[in-house]
Amino acid sequence: MKDYLKIAVIGAGSSYTPELIEGLLKRKHELPIGELWLVDIEEGKEKVEIIAGLTRRMIAREGLDIKVEVTLDRKPALKDADFVCSQFRAGCLEGRIRDERISLKYGMIGQETNGLGGFANACRTIPITLEICREMEELCPEAWLLNFTNPSGMVTEAILRHTKVKAVGLCNVPVIMQKGVAKLLDTEEQDVIMQVAGLNHFIWARQILHEGQDKLKHIVSEILSGKDYLVPKNIPPFAWPSDLLENMGMIPCAYLRYYYMSEDIMKQELEEADGEGTRGEVVKAMEKRLFDIYKNPEQNEKPRELEKRGGQYYSEAACELMSSIYNDKRTIMHVNTRNNGAIAGLPDDCAVEVSSVITKSGPLPLNVAPFPNDTLCLIQLMKEFESLTVEAAVTGNLNMAKRALILNPIVNTGSILDQALEETVRENLDYMPQFRHLIK
Amino acid sequence: MKDYLKIAVIGAGSSYTPELIEGLLKRKHELPIGELWLVDIEEGKEKVEIIAGLTRRMIAREGLDIKVEVTLDRKPALKDADFVCSQFRAGCLEGRIRDERISLKYGMIGQETNGLGGFANACRTIPITLEICREMEELCPEAWLLNFTNPSGMVTEAILRHTKVKAVGLCNVPVIMQKGVAKLLDTEEQDVIMQVAGLNHFIWARQILHEGQDKLKHIVSEILSGKDYLVPKNIPPFAWPSDLLENMGMIPCAYLRYYYMSEDIMKQELEEADGEGTRGEVVKAMEKRLFDIYKNPEQNEKPRELEKRGGQYYSEAACELMSSIYNDKRTIMHVNTRNNGAIAGLPDDCAVEVSSVITKSGPLPLNVAPFPNDTLCLIQLMKEFESLTVEAAVTGNLNMAKRALILNPIVNTGSILDQALEETVRENLDYMPQFRHLIK
Amino acid sequence: MKDYLKIAVIGAGSSYTPELIEGLLKRKHELPIGELWLVDIEEGKEKVEIIAGLTRRMIAREGLDIKVEVTLDRKPALKDADFVCSQFRAGCLEGRIRDERISLKYGMIGQETNGLGGFANACRTIPITLEICREMEELCPEAWLLNFTNPSGMVTEAILRHTKVKAVGLCNVPVIMQKGVAKLLDTEEQDVIMQVAGLNHFIWARQILHEGQDKLKHIVSEILSGKDYLVPKNIPPFAWPSDLLENMGMIPCAYLRYYYMSEDIMKQELEEADGEGTRGEVVKAMEKRLFDIYKNPEQNEKPRELEKRGGQYYSEAACELMSSIYNDKRTIMHVNTRNNGAIAGLPDDCAVEVSSVITKSGPLPLNVAPFPNDTLCLIQLMKEFESLTVEAAVTGNLNMAKRALILNPIVNTGSILDQALEETVRENLDYMPQFRHLIK
Amino acid sequence: MKDYLKIAVIGAGSSYTPELIEGLLKRKHELPIGELWLVDIEEGKEKVEIIAGLTRRMIAREGLDIKVEVTLDRKPALKDADFVCSQFRAGCLEGRIRDERISLKYGMIGQETNGLGGFANACRTIPITLEICREMEELCPEAWLLNFTNPSGMVTEAILRHTKVKAVGLCNVPVIMQKGVAKLLDTEEQDVIMQVAGLNHFIWARQILHEGQDKLKHIVSEILSGKDYLVPKNIPPFAWPSDLLENMGMIPCAYLRYYYMSEDIMKQELEEADGEGTRGEVVKAMEKRLFDIYKNPEQNEKPRELEKRGGQYYSEAACELMSSIYNDKRTIMHVNTRNNGAIAGLPDDCAVEVSSVITKSGPLPLNVAPFPNDTLCLIQLMKEFESLTVEAAVTGNLNMAKRALILNPIVNTGSILDQALEETVRENLDYMPQFRHLIK
Repeated sequence: MKDYLKIAVIGAGSSYTPELIEGLLKRKHELPIGELWLVDIEEGKEKVEIIAGLTRRMIAREGLDIKVEVTLDRKPALKDADFVCSQFRAGCLEGRIRDERISLKYGMIGQETNGLGGFANACRTIPITLEICREMEELCPEAWLLNFTNPSGMVTEAILRHTKVKAVGLCNVPVIMQKGVAKLLDTEEQDVIMQVAGLNHFIWARQILHEGQDKLKHIVSEILSGKDYLVPKNIPPFAWPSDLLENMGMIPCAYLRYYYMSEDIMKQELEEADGEGTRGEVVKAMEKRLFDIYKNPEQNEKPRELEKRGGQYYSEAACELMSSIYNDKRTIMHVNTRNNGAIAGLPDDCAVEVSSVITKSGPLPLNVAPFPNDTLCLIQLMKEFESLTVEAAVTGNLNMAKRALILNPIVNTGSILDQALEETVRENLDYMPQFRHLIK
Repeated sequence: MKDYLKIAVIGAGSSYTPELIEGLLKRKHELPIGELWLVDIEEGKEKVEIIAGLTRRMIAREGLDIKVEVTLDRKPALKDADFVCSQFRAGCLEGRIRDERISLKYGMIGQETNGLGGFANACRTIPITLEICREMEELCPEAWLLNFTNPSGMVTEAILRHTKVKAVGLCNVPVIMQKGVAKLLDTEEQDVIMQVAGLNHFIWARQILHEGQDKLKHIVSEILSGKDYLVPKNIPPFAWPSDLLENMGMIPCAYLRYYYMSEDIMKQELEEADGEGTRGEVVKAMEKRLFDIYKNPEQNEKPRELEKRGGQYYSEAACELMSSIYNDKRTIMHVNTRNNGAIAGLPDDCAVEVSSVITKSGPLPLNVAPFPNDTLCLIQLMKEFESLTVEAAVTGNLNMAKRALILNPIVNTGSILDQALEETVRENLDYMPQFRHLIK
Repeated sequence: MKDYLKIAVIGAGSSYTPELIEGLLKRKHELPIGELWLVDIEEGKEKVEIIAGLTRRMIAREGLDIKVEVTLDRKPALKDADFVCSQFRAGCLEGRIRDERISLKYGMIGQETNGLGGFANACRTIPITLEICREMEELCPEAWLLNFTNPSGMVTEAILRHTKVKAVGLCNVPVIMQKGVAKLLDTEEQDVIMQVAGLNHFIWARQILHEGQDKLKHIVSEILSGKDYLVPKNIPPFAWPSDLLENMGMIPCAYLRYYYMSEDIMKQELEEADGEGTRGEVVKAMEKRLFDIYKNPEQNEKPRELEKRGGQYYSEAACELMSSIYNDKRTIMHVNTRNNGAIAGLPDDCAVEVSSVITKSGPLPLNVAPFPNDTLCLIQLMKEFESLTVEAAVTGNLNMAKRALILNPIVNTGSILDQALEETVRENLDYMPQFRHLIK
Repeated sequence: MKDYLKIAVIGAGSSYTPELIEGLLKRKHELPIGELWLVDIEEGKEKVEIIAGLTRRMIAREGLDIKVEVTLDRKPALKDADFVCSQFRAGCLEGRIRDERISLKYGMIGQETNGLGGFANACRTIPITLEICREMEELCPEAWLLNFTNPSGMVTEAILRHTKVKAVGLCNVPVIMQKGVAKLLDTEEQDVIMQVAGLNHFIWARQILHEGQDKLKHIVSEILSGKDYLVPKNIPPFAWPSDLLENMGMIPCAYLRYYYMSEDIMKQELEEADGEGTRGEVVKAMEKRLFDIYKNPEQNEKPRELEKRGGQYYSEAACELMSSIYNDKRTIMHVNTRNNGAIAGLPDDCAVEVSSVITKSGPLPLNVAPFPNDTLCLIQLMKEFESLTVEAAVTGNLNMAKRALILNPIVNTGSILDQALEETVRENLDYMPQFRHLIK
């Protein structure tokens, strides 16, 4: 068994990175990390160097001996890596803000993983991800790719369908649900088994097992009594309609508000866009403040301010996943992986987000009890949207893009969609070379 | 074999009835009609008597001896009937207009068979339909019920699931498509086999066979060149986006514009509502003019003005269906019937609209080639909406109603839906006794 | 529309051919036949010339002017043909007899379309059939191939999967059932709709519609009372166990005795093999007698003796199918065609035997109501046997052959199967070039 | 958490019981057992008392204080039990021997869980099992029933379908496979994850994960090289045909020889029946010898001779399962439980044998990758046999019994089956009251 691990972080100039570093350092007795390669692109050079400085101070504080390298060239970073963490944002926050604003302009919800914005983000991100995977196939074919680049589900599906890389997609949404549930049960996280299933940002908790009993109904009543601790900070915490939640027999993740309560979300987004700015604009301002803190040569630990950022626990999940694989821990985690029959009614080769036993060979999904038919119909529709989007992102086929978007419940159809799609492609051309042929 | 047929028409005060009568008289050599019972309710008394007068004059003109009875009591009409035509409108045109206006008020498309309006119409209509079926089970258990009461698909499903009545649901949409296709191929209707499949107002032409070849691509190019003869007069004839239609491998019915082009429909509905009125309001005015003509004691045939009404060919289809059953003609017609495997991926016991061989034992559906997955997802979603709506209409379960509406792509979700649903129930209480318990 | 048809018959030296000729002559007002090409191989030269003589005398008797050509070279016969009838037997009756004897030697039922014999027959026949189809793709791409070469289902599947030829597979089993049912109902064949479904020689009558009612139960009781008119002459007419038939809700075809009553069949086959000979041996003797009659220059019509041969009505079905296609008659016939969803639970692209509306574009299968689960399991198993057999026949993959045979309920497994398979391949090497590599 | 467990053993007079006792005593630090109730029937009184004596000596040897009670009345034993182990044999070994002899007489394989013998065993066992479950629902509704009474899969399905008892079915077949695999990999059992799936005595190993790699191909080559350590001692160890095993992509359990190599099994059974006796007869003699040892007042541990008995490790599995549930250990074990989607293509509510994570709430099955279609067909067929058998055993419906048996590949069909079934029912009437109405 290897006792010297090489880890590469793609998009290391992200403001999240200190959380990842903290997570790795916490697991110093489980993960013998030897090298840490921080990779970014030219535009992120300044940020990644700030991060590298903070990282070195954090390592020093723990008294560890880990080599930290910064590079704008992926190849040396990937060469013989054991784990690759992908957390880049194609088109930077400017791309996200553009998605939000274009969507709102055409009367649609503007969000980085849902609707038209999710589609645009996928089209920018998937080509780069596949490029990284081609390099991994050559330079580190045995490495695990831990993807937390959004939209995590579609990106993972693109990898699973089009490359041989061993990849697992991650999301903080189920992590936050698990923590919320443990808090409501007043117990340790590892003592409760919360099984989730669905697609990335489109999951439901199906059972919550504790002390030999299913506590799902109990958690529902806690949520309805106002204690909805299961919601990430970046999702508007409207209360679920009580009859909906009481009769569902499962607990929808916070992102499902985009579908079950779309008008409320839309209204709030429009208000925000006219006020403090879209979510992307808010995050951009927040990032600036964070990097000012990171720069401080006295700063040698993750600052508490980072917790206000939406991606909370993302990196923690990545570190735990790394350790579970490396140590064959067989913990139950919630990951994006090949369906292969786990969710009945979805294709075998698509990506799903399901609770899985994490082994040295990767995730073994737990079986998912059949979904109620109405929910299954929604999941099938969204998966078809995702799969067509992935194919459109890979091939640049506009008809496929439209067929995808027409299915999405929060996308408007008709001539307005043609216009919104045209503007999206035109404004993102640098990041969507596959669609260049469509613009004269 | 019987040589004296008794026919009962429920909702005979409809302005469509003269078309039905004309269709029956045209088939005098195929259908030995002995009695025609025209049934309506108190509110429709005046109208049904006008219709009866016209009917008697039309019969006299043909020199036939058919007994015409008018009644406000269904039971004597149903007693020993051979065919029952259901064409009533629960809540009259006022109900339809109310549906349209409430939907528009809450930012949704307002239409009598789609979205919130279709839901409301189903909830008003299904309880009465089941009442009629209970009577038929007792008074004419061998009779065929030909349903053209809207929403025809959901009403047929309610009958198939909850009664033993032999029922077939009809719609003029595929009839108009068939006529349009024949015109474009410059041939007789019976020489072309157009196979359709889907749900009522949610069908696609899957193949168009003529002279041993599939002419579907040819018809698509004709439609794209501007000759879209397949559209009923009451559907806004926006041109289909050419890339969508060219790549679909099938031809969507005109009602699918409500889903593929929802923003355009919405915009036009809002303009109409502010101008000449909603469709229901326009129809109401048209009806008034029609009845003025019907009243004329000189009038002894179906007036041409009736053709401007949306329901064109509805009754023609009913008469042809009656003759096909009576004479075991084995013609291929497009009907709403039990799925039973015809469309793969839908429940066996739901209603679907499919091309079928009509025999003395009723419709034998042609097998439907599997749908492309994206289209199938939409059909499954809509069928689930329909089935949950039927159950909500039967049980008065509000949670089921919401679960249904949340699935419908042209229904807005969130608190706005709660409000719209509450207003719908409150304003329709006389016709929705099943929901009365919800209003304090 | 063409008014001069060219018909090619492959394997025209068969003793069945006079029935085919009679069928064509009966339809002289429906089918304007101009040329009839009788094709056979060197070994069949004498027989095909006897047949040609009789054919010319039969045509003359009808006073028709049809050109009759005999050839051992398929190509001129196929060139521009409109219909190709395939009725050859690969390996002649000697091959059939060999199959029967090898099967019995290893304790298995020996039959030309079932079990090990059916497998061997498929492996001999499919390579030649695909060769014919390659020629048709080039010489008469618009022609219809009417296949009644056995095993008809697997041969049709091979054509559908591996060629572009428009093909329909035929069998006399459902024809005999239909005639038997009409006789029991004392009505004309065309007045009853018997819907069958399953695989070739593995079908069930699912409904029997007459005068607006399903007479299936009535026919079952007739069969149980001893009037089983639904059985071909070559199938041992054991009585069905009454509780089985009464509770099945459908009527199994006679060949299903090979599965439901395998021990009885086995016992009888062993007795016959020790007595008058196997079925193949009996047929061989019968053929000799028939050709003696055909040779007679006075003979100018189909002799009655032919009716004792098992294939009764086969050719009649072929002629009716030809006319239905040519005239777009839309009759309901029972054919082997692509499943495409007709039988739920089977692959879309496999061949099934189902009642279909015959149009100028070929068969449109009627939808098949879902089978009871136990029957479906059997059909799925047999279809998997068939599909693996087809692939083994095409590729010469022995492992696939074994996987196929292991599934077949009337094939013994273990070392005995290895031996029986080895002997089958060795003894048939001239007709199974695809397996030559397996024999040292 | 409870610190005093009450365990009831039904059929405690079995010669296996000392293994169960040993397993419990080995886990004395994990399982705080307070009471052990040994239950049997009048016929087993002598044997259960011998067992009780040995049990008390074994406990004393460990210096533990566990109350041991012997009873012929189930109720006090079940009252407030925490775990109930079911290991009785309905009809004793005489029933088993009768099944074997009747099957062989009619030319079929005679075995206690397969074919006609498995059917008969299920019909004797299921009624008693359901009686026990009714008592448990009343006396210990929270207890877990660990079933190792054969046929374990069908018995578990009967419990899951017809009672509310929390039940898990166990089998030693996968335990032996797991041990064999660990031995071939030269590693500890817990370091390898072998995932199995299928039905009881009808499973395949789907993946064998060790050190981050799938070792399945390696194990296949070891088996083919002669080291088949995966076979229970009571299964004839014929070598698998190498091409079959090499191309399967999974490893069939030893019992699958009954289907893949049925003629070889049949031949061997006939030889044994004529020689040392059927398996049941051999076991009966062995049991006699074991009880002679158990009686010895000096004997205070499990004798080594017990290991020659087929059921090896059965009880070990039961003890580990008990501890995993009690301690929420989340070990991966191979159990019979509700399918619920784990194996795609089988009904949700049937019992399957699958590798599962064992929690305090019972087993959570791992997702099973879709089976190759030919194998799936076999599994579906066998599951349908099992489900129909369960229903026949519960209802006494003979037609259902025949429909079940007709599906089973190692059951002969036709009049021979009617005779064999009649004899089976007649000879077992005391244990099959549900079928009494069939015998005059």
